[in-house]
Amino acid sequence: MIFASDNWSGVHPAISSRLSEQAGGFAPAYGSSEIDKKVENTFNQLFEREVAVFFVGTGTAANSLALASVNRPGGVTFCQREAHMIEDECGAPEFFTHGARLVPVDGDDGKIHPQNLQSEIARFPPDFIHAGQPMAISITQATEIGTVYLVDEIEEIAAIAKDQGLPLHMDGARFANALVALNLSPAEMTWKAGVDIISFGATKNGCWCAEALVFFDPQMARDLPYIRKRAAQLFSKTRFIASQFDAYLNENLWLDLARHANAMAQRLRQGITRSKNARLGWQTITNEVFCIISRPLACQLQQKGVIFHEWNPPRSKPDLIGDAEILIRLVTSFSTQPGHVDQFIELLG
Amino acid sequence: MIFASDNWSGVHPAISSRLSEQAGGFAPAYGSSEIDKKVENTFNQLFEREVAVFFVGTGTAANSLALASVNRPGGVTFCQREAHMIEDECGAPEFFTHGARLVPVDGDDGKIHPQNLQSEIARFPPDFIHAGQPMAISITQATEIGTVYLVDEIEEIAAIAKDQGLPLHMDGARFANALVALNLSPAEMTWKAGVDIISFGATKNGCWCAEALVFFDPQMARDLPYIRKRAAQLFSKTRFIASQFDAYLNENLWLDLARHANAMAQRLRQGITRSKNARLGWQTITNEVFCIISRPLACQLQQKGVIFHEWNPPRSKPDLIGDAEILIRLVTSFSTQPGHVDQFIELLG
Amino acid sequence: MIFASDNWSGVHPAISSRLSEQAGGFAPAYGSSEIDKKVENTFNQLFEREVAVFFVGTGTAANSLALASVNRPGGVTFCQREAHMIEDECGAPEFFTHGARLVPVDGDDGKIHPQNLQSEIARFPPDFIHAGQPMAISITQATEIGTVYLVDEIEEIAAIAKDQGLPLHMDGARFANALVALNLSPAEMTWKAGVDIISFGATKNGCWCAEALVFFDPQMARDLPYIRKRAAQLFSKTRFIASQFDAYLNENLWLDLARHANAMAQRLRQGITRSKNARLGWQTITNEVFCIISRPLACQLQQKGVIFHEWNPPRSKPDLIGDAEILIRLVTSFSTQPGHVDQFIELLG
Amino acid sequence: MIFASDNWSGVHPAISSRLSEQAGGFAPAYGSSEIDKKVENTFNQLFEREVAVFFVGTGTAANSLALASVNRPGGVTFCQREAHMIEDECGAPEFFTHGARLVPVDGDDGKIHPQNLQSEIARFPPDFIHAGQPMAISITQATEIGTVYLVDEIEEIAAIAKDQGLPLHMDGARFANALVALNLSPAEMTWKAGVDIISFGATKNGCWCAEALVFFDPQMARDLPYIRKRAAQLFSKTRFIASQFDAYLNENLWLDLARHANAMAQRLRQGITRSKNARLGWQTITNEVFCIISRPLACQLQQKGVIFHEWNPPRSKPDLIGDAEILIRLVTSFSTQPGHVDQFIELLG
Repeated sequence: MIFASDNWSGVHPAISSRLSEQAGGFAPAYGSSEIDKKVENTFNQLFEREVAVFFVGTGTAANSLALASVNRPGGVTFCQREAHMIEDECGAPEFFTHGARLVPVDGDDGKIHPQNLQSEIARFPPDFIHAGQPMAISITQATEIGTVYLVDEIEEIAAIAKDQGLPLHMDGARFANALVALNLSPAEMTWKAGVDIISFGATKNGCWCAEALVFFDPQMARDLPYIRKRAAQLFSKTRFIASQFDAYLNENLWLDLARHANAMAQRLRQGITRSKNARLGWQTITNEVFCIISRPLACQLQQKGVIFHEWNPPRSKPDLIGDAEILIRLVTSFSTQPGHVDQFIELLG
Repeated sequence: MIFASDNWSGVHPAISSRLSEQAGGFAPAYGSSEIDKKVENTFNQLFEREVAVFFVGTGTAANSLALASVNRPGGVTFCQREAHMIEDECGAPEFFTHGARLVPVDGDDGKIHPQNLQSEIARFPPDFIHAGQPMAISITQATEIGTVYLVDEIEEIAAIAKDQGLPLHMDGARFANALVALNLSPAEMTWKAGVDIISFGATKNGCWCAEALVFFDPQMARDLPYIRKRAAQLFSKTRFIASQFDAYLNENLWLDLARHANAMAQRLRQGITRSKNARLGWQTITNEVFCIISRPLACQLQQKGVIFHEWNPPRSKPDLIGDAEILIRLVTSFSTQPGHVDQFIELLG
Repeated sequence: MIFASDNWSGVHPAISSRLSEQAGGFAPAYGSSEIDKKVENTFNQLFEREVAVFFVGTGTAANSLALASVNRPGGVTFCQREAHMIEDECGAPEFFTHGARLVPVDGDDGKIHPQNLQSEIARFPPDFIHAGQPMAISITQATEIGTVYLVDEIEEIAAIAKDQGLPLHMDGARFANALVALNLSPAEMTWKAGVDIISFGATKNGCWCAEALVFFDPQMARDLPYIRKRAAQLFSKTRFIASQFDAYLNENLWLDLARHANAMAQRLRQGITRSKNARLGWQTITNEVFCIISRPLACQLQQKGVIFHEWNPPRSKPDLIGDAEILIRLVTSFSTQPGHVDQFIELLG
Repeated sequence: MIFASDNWSGVHPAISSRLSEQAGGFAPAYGSSEIDKKVENTFNQLFEREVAVFFVGTGTAANSLALASVNRPGGVTFCQREAHMIEDECGAPEFFTHGARLVPVDGDDGKIHPQNLQSEIARFPPDFIHAGQPMAISITQATEIGTVYLVDEIEEIAAIAKDQGLPLHMDGARFANALVALNLSPAEMTWKAGVDIISFGATKNGCWCAEALVFFDPQMARDLPYIRKRAAQLFSKTRFIASQFDAYLNENLWLDLARHANAMAQRLRQGITRSKNARLGWQTITNEVFCIISRPLACQLQQKGVIFHEWNPPRSKPDLIGDAEILIRLVTSFSTQPGHVDQFIELLG
């Protein structure tokens, strides 16, 4: 019963097979092979326009290089207070931008609230150089707490970005989970809503190591080849990433995997709703379920082999949990089985 | 007939299989899985002592983080003039060290000459802060031009390093090829000869993407976990690197693969020696053969499907080639077949 | 009637004279002259122990290099939410530390509250590398809003720092103003209370450009000569900074100047207290007075030649001002005359 | 008899006086004062066009921020092998550009040879990302060894720069000495010959601390205000730099001071030419004289109070000195007196 994270899962068999098929023979290195080109074209089709796509090794790399591509001296990027870039990347975004700052913006449900965004931006008046200068806005879809931005919510933030002349980045470590939850096309959830750059994650949803940085305006990415190489993220045998994407994006496998993960989360949600020993922290939309249980129960569950992480309550919900309670995060993935969920619900009582 | 680079090869079947076997199930992320621990222990045995080992995604990452771990303000690292870190990493070592400089040291055969090393170090007298301060010495084994340092040559450089209080790094992108050429144990070619840190490469010798940064003094690596994470090189599903190493290092597969690559290079060398249309640039020791041919012949070979790179003559050999000649590099790998070599030699005439 | 900032003042005649006296002749460059050495010794006497002192050009440089000297990968420095390093240095501290983060800590009166500090530190558990690692605590004395830490308040923060193994830095841009307000010796307000490094500012209190970075443990500063030079802060004719300090620290001139500035602030405070058109934002302790007036009155004052800055109310005091009101900051300096204050108070009505 | 460096001199009385005059009263901080504006306008007149000018504290800062303003990922800047940026700035240019590399270009007389420049640039073919990408060319005028580029030499390098789309920077730490030696106008020696950015130094020629970064295309400097502030080079009381420039540039004082320094160098040259115990290393054009003497004589001179630096022979002149000889550098300045020179020549014998 592993609900620690979707990155505890392995690799989907179809992806593993494609990788094995590519193992033989020779192919040009550093992104020039046929399968590299094929997958680049797949991305064009996926997003219904020509995009500039760059494979990298980790989600942290994708996010950091996205910011590096729009870097400015004294730059500040606005992101939600609990964003992965702030909480879990050990300062990589700041490192790759030589110290550009991440400014936390408050908002409920793990999302930037547009009004708070405007207030924070207003703290950086044009030409007041002492404060630094805005350089980007970044949103996470799905968010760190499993919620999603609706299209009009993205559009509202994109309007602010456009008004300020700022690029809008989307951290899509769980892009697929959000996409199927909202039943949108990739284009609708991104550039049609005003997004400029996405970190397109596949690792958490069934790959070994496959992340892509996608620019909707290739001109914005003109220095990215150098930025990526200098960042030690240009792999020699890029086939190994391209092959994973090739299988992942084939015949909607990626969407099927995300639908499964989300369905397992709903199954968890339903069980928790029925339980008298647990309650939901907030709504379950993608593949993360947050619930509140007593600390003794948490220990019992762990002793019986359930693996999950305790989670800090969002700063906007300081009263979410009681004294003897904890908030836990349960993450499902393509490899979560219904039996695992049911077993967990049974243990929950 | 692909002799462009050993990174044009794919992956050895035994490594591919091990990866597939690991695809299912769940495992702790970020380096905590059983296979991660198992492989860490394999490295201890390999080097006959306790080492600190860190998996990263590229050789450039390994080299850059090695320098980052010993970084000093105004630091300079001494390496051979044609070193990969200088010529082919797009400034990554400087980037990850925030501007520490690579100082080129001349020497024949792709190797640092100890006397030149001492002259260069002497340009940075203690307490003359304007020049900066020495921070490391880096050698490449096998070198960029396929030659190797003998043990006593490593020891001589290590003695200078020790005398200056500088750590000695070895870029081992082709570590295995050097090791079998010299018929040494990993310990003999590294710490027993005075090396402190190695970039242990496996990608060029049969893996998809498997590089390890190895410290013989774990204390020197105490900040590396943060350095690696901040550098976006901490993969979530590290199993995918560990599994490759697990198969690679099993039952001496890695040495067998390197022996095969080196043998293919010798087969090339012999053919070239017999040819009246080509001559060797210098001795062939590992899996790189450098030879001089006429430009028209080079074109003919390419038209017939031979793939190789033209190479800049080393600065120490300005008279190596004639006016209508070019220097070419032929690289063999674990997947080079004798038939490919023989076909090439036949075309050479 | 200039109350915009103490850096709108010029230079005290005694300091200007000393500078002129030093103008002739020759002296060793880069910090080796006799007056450099003399002033270094003055700092030893001032702090009643041997210190390592480095002259730099700006307060931002002093703060940034202080952090650079204790830099760690993924490092975070804790400072008060409204600290100058966060609000007014355009990302310099992050730049000079290659992306180390400044974590804002809440607290009343412009000061870090120890309990909040501990909560924030607790968000960085040892070995949880994803979050980064604590590297320093920084306090400002006097604070950005003119208040001061009492000795036992410094000691309380220093105890946390010591417990966590973190160096404690003090941004002393207005060190003298705090010192005379508290009637302490330099040693009492710093190392005797647990401070490790200070940015010792003199520019705001009567110099042209004289800032010193002082380390109480010289060993902590062993790389500072390189850090300073690489930061382009090693002046060739350091005499010009040393001479300013020589006059500044002579016969307690610096304390007299700070006492005058503070007295002018008290004179302002008294006038405001008597006025029916203004009220104090909070207590006046050093040379900054914050008061609340109506927006129309602010305009009238400006039209009559009063220069001051509007100020954002501290986030901890969101209800400080009414709808038609603004908070203004009035800063006095060594060159503020009683007549200026009285004239302002008269205009205030 | 101080010939160690022109930065051992102090400040010219006219400059010191102007500084004292500005000491009183109040003025807007951070570059907004009247004298700041006045001097900015003086620069426009000086260069016969509108320029963007930024005061900074050191020559290293000017050079480093010049490169930072044209920074590119994986960028390389071409400069003469013995350039100050390479030899004497402790890695500051690399630091402020986050690791952009300085590529040494050989050439006689301390100058970049155009053909060598083209060979070095050719090592960075477009789109070969592994090598990095050219980002700037930098020349030093007068050079580190006291020679100068003639206008047509500058034009030849500028033509290469233009052809490659690279900005041309001039390190003008001794700008005035070159200008009067060549009898050119500032415009003729810079933008009319194709220079884009200059580090305009005044410290070595009679100021305390006055360096300016001048852009002939203000658009190229649009981020410089942020770059400078983030680099801790925005002084609060910028009057102190502006005042120095105000006096320095007034009624051609700066040219008179440089003419004096150069004349003192000629006086030295003549004495050396007459001496049987010394010979010139190369021609004397500005305010640096290089000569070769025996080691015993050097010791005698030092014992008698002559201060100078031993100098490494240029790599292009390995046979310049004999076994028992040394090369010494003698630098004159605005404050060198004829009597000092004559006394030295007499000691030389």
